[in-house]
Amino acid sequence: MSYLGVGVSPGTVPVYHGTKLIVLDRRVRIAELVLRGVSLGLGVLAIVLIVTDTQVKEFFSFQKKAKFTDMKVLVFLVVANGLTVGYSLVQGLRCVVSMVRGNVLFSKHLAWLIFSGDQVMAYVTVAAAAAAMQSGLIGREGQAEFQWMKLCNMYGKFCNQMGEGIATAFVVSLSMVLLSSLSAFSLFRLYGANKNKNAAW
Amino acid sequence: MSYLGVGVSPGTVPVYHGTKLIVLDRRVRIAELVLRGVSLGLGVLAIVLIVTDTQVKEFFSFQKKAKFTDMKVLVFLVVANGLTVGYSLVQGLRCVVSMVRGNVLFSKHLAWLIFSGDQVMAYVTVAAAAAAMQSGLIGREGQAEFQWMKLCNMYGKFCNQMGEGIATAFVVSLSMVLLSSLSAFSLFRLYGANKNKNAAW
Repeated sequence: MSYLGVGVSPGTVPVYHGTKLIVLDRRVRIAELVLRGVSLGLGVLAIVLIVTDTQVKEFFSFQKKAKFTDMKVLVFLVVANGLTVGYSLVQGLRCVVSMVRGNVLFSKHLAWLIFSGDQVMAYVTVAAAAAAMQSGLIGREGQAEFQWMKLCNMYGKFCNQMGEGIATAFVVSLSMVLLSSLSAFSLFRLYGANKNKNAAW
Repeated sequence: MSYLGVGVSPGTVPVYHGTKLIVLDRRVRIAELVLRGVSLGLGVLAIVLIVTDTQVKEFFSFQKKAKFTDMKVLVFLVVANGLTVGYSLVQGLRCVVSMVRGNVLFSKHLAWLIFSGDQVMAYVTVAAAAAAMQSGLIGREGQAEFQWMKLCNMYGKFCNQMGEGIATAFVVSLSMVLLSSLSAFSLFRLYGANKNKNAAW
């Protein structure tokens, strides 16, 4: 129970010693750590699934190889997930350090930095997953009106693994969405409705 | 200056009479109204641009017509923007009514509702815009490895108008992103760090 009080003068923030807020703050911290771990682990898995996705087909006298770089959007998805992995590693470490040290996030500058980073990463991962899903759908269904033919008839294994990679990236983007709500909570509660001292924006 | 005080007991929330918070609250309210207006207006423009986007080409003896329903993702974009327009209308009216009545948002239930709605709309519009951009890019550049041919050589006017529609939808999604940050601010400041009364989550 004591980690919330360390480094905080009881005179300045007396209410932080209330049980409800201590429990709430601990839950937020644990949820954040779990979600950073999910983003990190599944981000790596999505990259591995997409980067290793190849299939060779023989057409009579010649071979044709499908690989992820044939679809520009998969390259974008790999880059977006690479950024997420690096970002989650740094933020996860920060989270662990602040839990071990027992710091409470009261710095508006740091809270703004985390909030902004999480927002950017959430929208980038959602956009990358949505764009990849769209290409995946065209690959699976084709777009007959424009003579964009189905891939999945020809490259079944390539297509399945691509689907698994995109689904994993989708879960990564969901965890980034939840994280961006958590960091919004951690930032904006510092602008509490009856907190006069730091009200200037 | 008085609208912030109406319906609020000075004894309950005395700090809301501080000049800084009054100015901040008014700025947030005005920014919200402007962004709801932008989402509404540009949402309608995006729908009109996409729905009216057709082009007829003659190939020797037969005609071929490109229309927005040929690309499933454009139908999704129109639906997403339709939802945004309806949602922005309702939220804009709520915003105007609360400004006229001089209410301040202190209800956590309502704040959660607005926050959740804004979050969903922000991510849906970003995903729709990203997916449409991806299809648009395939249309412009083609995907030679899979024999997905360029559209824009054949349907230049169709392609340009589609680009304008997608760009407009992108601006709509940006304003929804900003709105979701504003509503996060309005919600989570109710969980102010030294506000004990309503601290249970």
